[in-house]
Amino acid sequence: MNKDQKLLKKAKKILPGGNQLLSKRAEMFAPNIWPSYFTKAKGCEIWDLEKKKYFDFAGMGVTACTLGYADNFVNKKVKAAIDKASLTTLNSLDEIKLAENLVKIHKWAKMAKFCKSGGEACLVAIRLARSISKKQNIAFCGYHGWHDWYLSANLENNKNLDGQLLPGLKTLGVNKSYANSMFPFFYNDIDSLKKLLVKKNDIGIIIMEPMRFTKPKKKFLKKIKSIAKKKGLILIFDEITSGFHDNFGGLHLKLGVSPDLAIFGKALGNGFPISAIIGKKEIMQKANETFISSTMWTEQIGFVAANATLEKLKKNNINKKNIKIGKKIKKIWRNAAIKNNLNITIGGIDTLPSFKFNYSNQEIISTFVTREMLKFGILANNAPSVTAAYTDNILKIYKNAIENVFCNISNYINNNKKIPLLKRDIRLSNFGRLTG
Amino acid sequence: MNKDQKLLKKAKKILPGGNQLLSKRAEMFAPNIWPSYFTKAKGCEIWDLEKKKYFDFAGMGVTACTLGYADNFVNKKVKAAIDKASLTTLNSLDEIKLAENLVKIHKWAKMAKFCKSGGEACLVAIRLARSISKKQNIAFCGYHGWHDWYLSANLENNKNLDGQLLPGLKTLGVNKSYANSMFPFFYNDIDSLKKLLVKKNDIGIIIMEPMRFTKPKKKFLKKIKSIAKKKGLILIFDEITSGFHDNFGGLHLKLGVSPDLAIFGKALGNGFPISAIIGKKEIMQKANETFISSTMWTEQIGFVAANATLEKLKKNNINKKNIKIGKKIKKIWRNAAIKNNLNITIGGIDTLPSFKFNYSNQEIISTFVTREMLKFGILANNAPSVTAAYTDNILKIYKNAIENVFCNISNYINNNKKIPLLKRDIRLSNFGRLTG
Repeated sequence: MNKDQKLLKKAKKILPGGNQLLSKRAEMFAPNIWPSYFTKAKGCEIWDLEKKKYFDFAGMGVTACTLGYADNFVNKKVKAAIDKASLTTLNSLDEIKLAENLVKIHKWAKMAKFCKSGGEACLVAIRLARSISKKQNIAFCGYHGWHDWYLSANLENNKNLDGQLLPGLKTLGVNKSYANSMFPFFYNDIDSLKKLLVKKNDIGIIIMEPMRFTKPKKKFLKKIKSIAKKKGLILIFDEITSGFHDNFGGLHLKLGVSPDLAIFGKALGNGFPISAIIGKKEIMQKANETFISSTMWTEQIGFVAANATLEKLKKNNINKKNIKIGKKIKKIWRNAAIKNNLNITIGGIDTLPSFKFNYSNQEIISTFVTREMLKFGILANNAPSVTAAYTDNILKIYKNAIENVFCNISNYINNNKKIPLLKRDIRLSNFGRLTG
Repeated sequence: MNKDQKLLKKAKKILPGGNQLLSKRAEMFAPNIWPSYFTKAKGCEIWDLEKKKYFDFAGMGVTACTLGYADNFVNKKVKAAIDKASLTTLNSLDEIKLAENLVKIHKWAKMAKFCKSGGEACLVAIRLARSISKKQNIAFCGYHGWHDWYLSANLENNKNLDGQLLPGLKTLGVNKSYANSMFPFFYNDIDSLKKLLVKKNDIGIIIMEPMRFTKPKKKFLKKIKSIAKKKGLILIFDEITSGFHDNFGGLHLKLGVSPDLAIFGKALGNGFPISAIIGKKEIMQKANETFISSTMWTEQIGFVAANATLEKLKKNNINKKNIKIGKKIKKIWRNAAIKNNLNITIGGIDTLPSFKFNYSNQEIISTFVTREMLKFGILANNAPSVTAAYTDNILKIYKNAIENVFCNISNYINNNKKIPLLKRDIRLSNFGRLTG
């Protein structure tokens, strides 16, 4: 065991699972070889415990760091705010500024609320929606976190969440009385929603991600909105992953359909903890009639980081630039696959591109790719997140590595040879942006 | 309207209630005169929009900043971490260090989990407790945040939470099906718990604050623990407010009774967002069998800030020093009350001292105190939080102001004169540490 693996072993003794996020565990990339810890990161470069440098093509902090790690512009503003105190008895000026920024970008929204994590922001949105809707039950599509309201979907049928992002989610510890309030429908399947609403007439809320892997079918989102409007349902878009990547704001602005509430996180603060709920006035104001309140939400570096991130994204036109980079990455995969006769499907918005191997042993192939890419000094999985820090030079290094590794895989697949991987070295089931 | 009031008016148009925390609203201190916003804070000094300086005797950031605002030692470490990136694809070394620190301080605990807000940490603790307990329902005492699991206590009886910290909490938007899972008992009333457990035989969990305003009666906590042990109930201490003030760790260490799980927040990070759950191994490990996972919880400045805070608290023996300061503050109140023939009750642990006026118009009196103290350049309410930044000189200024204001109040009360305050200028109901 190297230093990193020893530390991970030690960590698992005092931290269940070793950390706080499933998708940051070595087991989700390449067990027993993936570096678990960083000592420093800048731009798209990251250094492990042995001070070995990697380029990060494995999500850039679970899609959060679109500007790159430790961005000078954002960090300078955050550090200045820290010098002036992060949290006091009084309120932060940046809290108002961030609300103004978000409602200016999303004209349909009039008010904002803030939290620190995406999961908690989803709960605020659900509370607000349930505050105004006479019907309390929820139709959902996609992934919305670990909280009870969401996981309770699996209480009445433990496969209810399987068709969404994460199969096999366990409901241990979710109060059984929460059952029968959450019902799934499926992306690009408008009939699945229609049938659901016929079957369950106590649904008052729809929550969904505007898009993950697959593009919306023509008018799919418009149809959802029209159903919501006709039946008086509250429509919530969870933009925690999709927001501020392909465009300056929620992806729904680009897709042309606005919800009643939208939720942001991740990319909003370029790696500082902040999440937001924006929405129509009559719904948001329900926050004055129900108790939603948390000390840590008032801490100001999240607001400051978000305002700085928005400023730089806009000023430098980064979303558009990142789309160009994302298209280049998709092209690298496409060409390498064609050249090496590999069957892959490429999906995702351009700034959150992803691919999957269309083979039954795709988990083994993907693990192999991740392991081989490490040899080129690259952290890689099937779902990178584009950052402005990817220069043409770095993309060239990535292209060269991908071509090498795809060629290597092709030798196994197209010659019917078994990929030499022990079972314990294969990554866990396909978590990421591939199944939504 | 001054600049501050104009800004607050503007804020309320885009932020429901104007901010993210009830107890940071001007209405909770002195409506129409309290400064809502800060531009800078250092030690126990804070500057408002007009650059007017105040000493903060009104909670030091909802009890979070025991070391003082913008503490040099903590800020230096946090800023160094920010330079090295706050959140990446890999994990933070400080996450392990913080877990080690917490289990070292609390010998009965073997593992830790982290979140960013106190409310979310409570939900994690409840999920873990419900994961291991065969009985899903909860006996609770005290305040545990805004989440559905807690507020649901008021679904079956809208007075269930009234005897705790916050009377009149509304359940709008909490799913009705969550009813009948939460049942209150009362502090220092062991019979209220015993009776409850006879009446409800499906209770598997006890959650409570080890102490707020009133000291525990002899053996009260020991009796709770013995009941929990006998009946196989999971005992959770919510130390979000009480932890790391009077002593280096949870207050339960000082009170001599250890729980199965404990929750920390606030003072743990000296104003940076971090919360923690620590507990026995067999309960904590249930986190591997239920889905609890959040991107923002992996962000490292919370861990770094907490480790630095713990280091400084310990090295400088600050908890003990703060107790001395707290005793001085209690003495200032006691002497000023005696001198001016005012009937007050002083309570709370020494580092979270508080007092109440024993008069029917106590809300009016307290608002008057807050308004008058502003004239002395002091932010004050009935529940300050001791910080190491209170020097003897600053305490002298506070003492002088309190004596002046108490004398002033005495003139009204002891001469049966009406305190000249308009209804709209009186603070809202007594939120704080006074009723628990």
